Amino acid sequence: MKIICSKTNLTNGVNIVSKAVPSKTSLSILQCILINAEKGVITLTANDTELGIETTIEGTIEEEGNVALDAKFLSEIVRKLPDNQVEIEVDQNYITKIKCEKTFFNLIGKDGEDFTGLPKISKTDSVVISELSLKDVIKQTIFCLSDNNSNHMMSSELFEISKDVLKVVALDGYRIAYRKINLKNSYPDVKVIIPGKTLNEISRILSGEENKEVEIFFEKNHVLFEFDNTKIVSRLVEGQYFNYEQMLNNDYETKFEINKRELYDSIDRSTLLLREGEIKPIIMDIKDNELNISIKTMVGEMKEDVSVVKTGKDLTIAFRPKFILDVLRVLEEDQIKVYTINAKSPYIIKDDEGSYIYFILPVNFVR
Amino acid sequence: MKIICSKTNLTNGVNIVSKAVPSKTSLSILQCILINAEKGVITLTANDTELGIETTIEGTIEEEGNVALDAKFLSEIVRKLPDNQVEIEVDQNYITKIKCEKTFFNLIGKDGEDFTGLPKISKTDSVVISELSLKDVIKQTIFCLSDNNSNHMMSSELFEISKDVLKVVALDGYRIAYRKINLKNSYPDVKVIIPGKTLNEISRILSGEENKEVEIFFEKNHVLFEFDNTKIVSRLVEGQYFNYEQMLNNDYETKFEINKRELYDSIDRSTLLLREGEIKPIIMDIKDNELNISIKTMVGEMKEDVSVVKTGKDLTIAFRPKFILDVLRVLEEDQIKVYTINAKSPYIIKDDEGSYIYFILPVNFVR
Repeated sequence: MKIICSKTNLTNGVNIVSKAVPSKTSLSILQCILINAEKGVITLTANDTELGIETTIEGTIEEEGNVALDAKFLSEIVRKLPDNQVEIEVDQNYITKIKCEKTFFNLIGKDGEDFTGLPKISKTDSVVISELSLKDVIKQTIFCLSDNNSNHMMSSELFEISKDVLKVVALDGYRIAYRKINLKNSYPDVKVIIPGKTLNEISRILSGEENKEVEIFFEKNHVLFEFDNTKIVSRLVEGQYFNYEQMLNNDYETKFEINKRELYDSIDRSTLLLREGEIKPIIMDIKDNELNISIKTMVGEMKEDVSVVKTGKDLTIAFRPKFILDVLRVLEEDQIKVYTINAKSPYIIKDDEGSYIYFILPVNFVR
Repeated sequence: MKIICSKTNLTNGVNIVSKAVPSKTSLSILQCILINAEKGVITLTANDTELGIETTIEGTIEEEGNVALDAKFLSEIVRKLPDNQVEIEVDQNYITKIKCEKTFFNLIGKDGEDFTGLPKISKTDSVVISELSLKDVIKQTIFCLSDNNSNHMMSSELFEISKDVLKVVALDGYRIAYRKINLKNSYPDVKVIIPGKTLNEISRILSGEENKEVEIFFEKNHVLFEFDNTKIVSRLVEGQYFNYEQMLNNDYETKFEINKRELYDSIDRSTLLLREGEIKPIIMDIKDNELNISIKTMVGEMKEDVSVVKTGKDLTIAFRPKFILDVLRVLEEDQIKVYTINAKSPYIIKDDEGSYIYFILPVNFVR
């Protein structure tokens, strides 16, 4: 194999596929990026068997062939090459010469035939969504997933399509993120569970441009995302997703509207008196049109008032600050609406249009 | 005590003195910042007994007094307050109320009388240097200090003044950084050893403006740096500094001039084939007017040519890449000059004016 391409194209391609290279694995071939030059197309591939990424880069093929190169070394080398044309040439022992200006690297490569490519996905039933919408909807939900991988459902998201509506749900047992977006076209019903890791990597690769589109193909066990020159294939999670809908009911006894920035800053300050690792609920007192945030720790105490517009009963509720801050960080509105029944029941942040619902369980507290 | 000052002034002051708060100590009073309001002046002080910093901030004193507050909590709180006037009021039990707009914090403080202030330095014999020069000279030498604190001399710098010349020297047993700068005035001879930690913190506080000046006062055991509204007092290291001068001799058998950027990039790339923690010398072959950099590891090999203008013999030398990169990073020149006698002797990077000399020991190697 012998190819020539620009440092920029090569760097971009390597950066994209590197996201599917597992950080730790006993199989050294999985730590490689496959470079394949065939029929005028240069393709880079990485595949950790759960998630596979393939992208094509522009360049000249002087000799067809392929090679698998260690992803870490390849990406470091490529990143630090001079900004010029790069020549990659592989000999029959897979010794790979990387040449750029007066710099020469020799890397010990592996036979590309040993590399497991992406599973073939039959391209029927595709769904189209803008890069911007997909990137946004992932960002707005993914923080509600559990870090604990032992429960696959809680570290994966539900993608549910019905006609021209896509619902995306993430939950970790303490909170639920629910987002609803409208698609341009109508599609047959789909209900799949996609690993959070896949979505996280996709959102990092997506440019997020509004006028660029992502095509999504669903199969029984896999999903394929196709955009720009990139294909991302991921396994789906098997099983039945949680019956989340019954938890998102519409009853409330207290509702208040509040400035998002003011609430964020207050809660952010309320965590300052906590020592590292110390968990203590923050208390929110809603009385008339004032919300009072307070906390008392070994170090001292903090109190702060924020104006609200309240409907319904006065209320005292305790909460974990991180859970509210996470939600406030992804909301675009300046004013937000919070609903709750009592101190023991969840509080819900949602808009009037039903485009988002965030559900958070409160914590117990003693005064 | 009751004072009112702007959030900005308070934040700046707290940030400055925080640099003298030890990260770990068994004495909780050392983890505090002393706020003292007296005779119209608000002073903040921190002191870890080796290094003490005092700064004054603008503000109104409504009631004189003092309090010692935990530095970590104080600085976090102050940083996140709304951008407005801050009121700090202390009661007879040192409970300190910090108030800003609708935010109230209560912090448990300590009696300021328990706080050890800065040692008194009699202000004779001062030396004046611009903030820019002091900041530069620290940056250009401090990386040659040893991280190992067991040898005080190798984690401290020599400051030697003779007439209108300041020499600053740092060394760690493998390399020496030597800088010489001209002062505006002539001074009596001074030769002191200043802890690297002190210099590091000073360089972070210095604005580095050319037209601002630092006054330095020397005493038997202490040095005082005074600039802007800040005083920094540090212990000096006792003992005799190394006889470094005899090592910086002028003999050479090979001299070459090279583009700094090209050399930096080449050496930087040569480290890419090293696995984490792997130490392997890089080999430099100087032949005619070409310098060839090469390395061979388990992963592959790298070769690169850089043009040089050479005087004297051809030479092959092996070196630790970090040692050269550290020096190249602080040099301002585009072209640099390297001198050496043979593969076993140190190589020296210096300019013609004698304003800097960097001495680096080579490493052994086998082809």
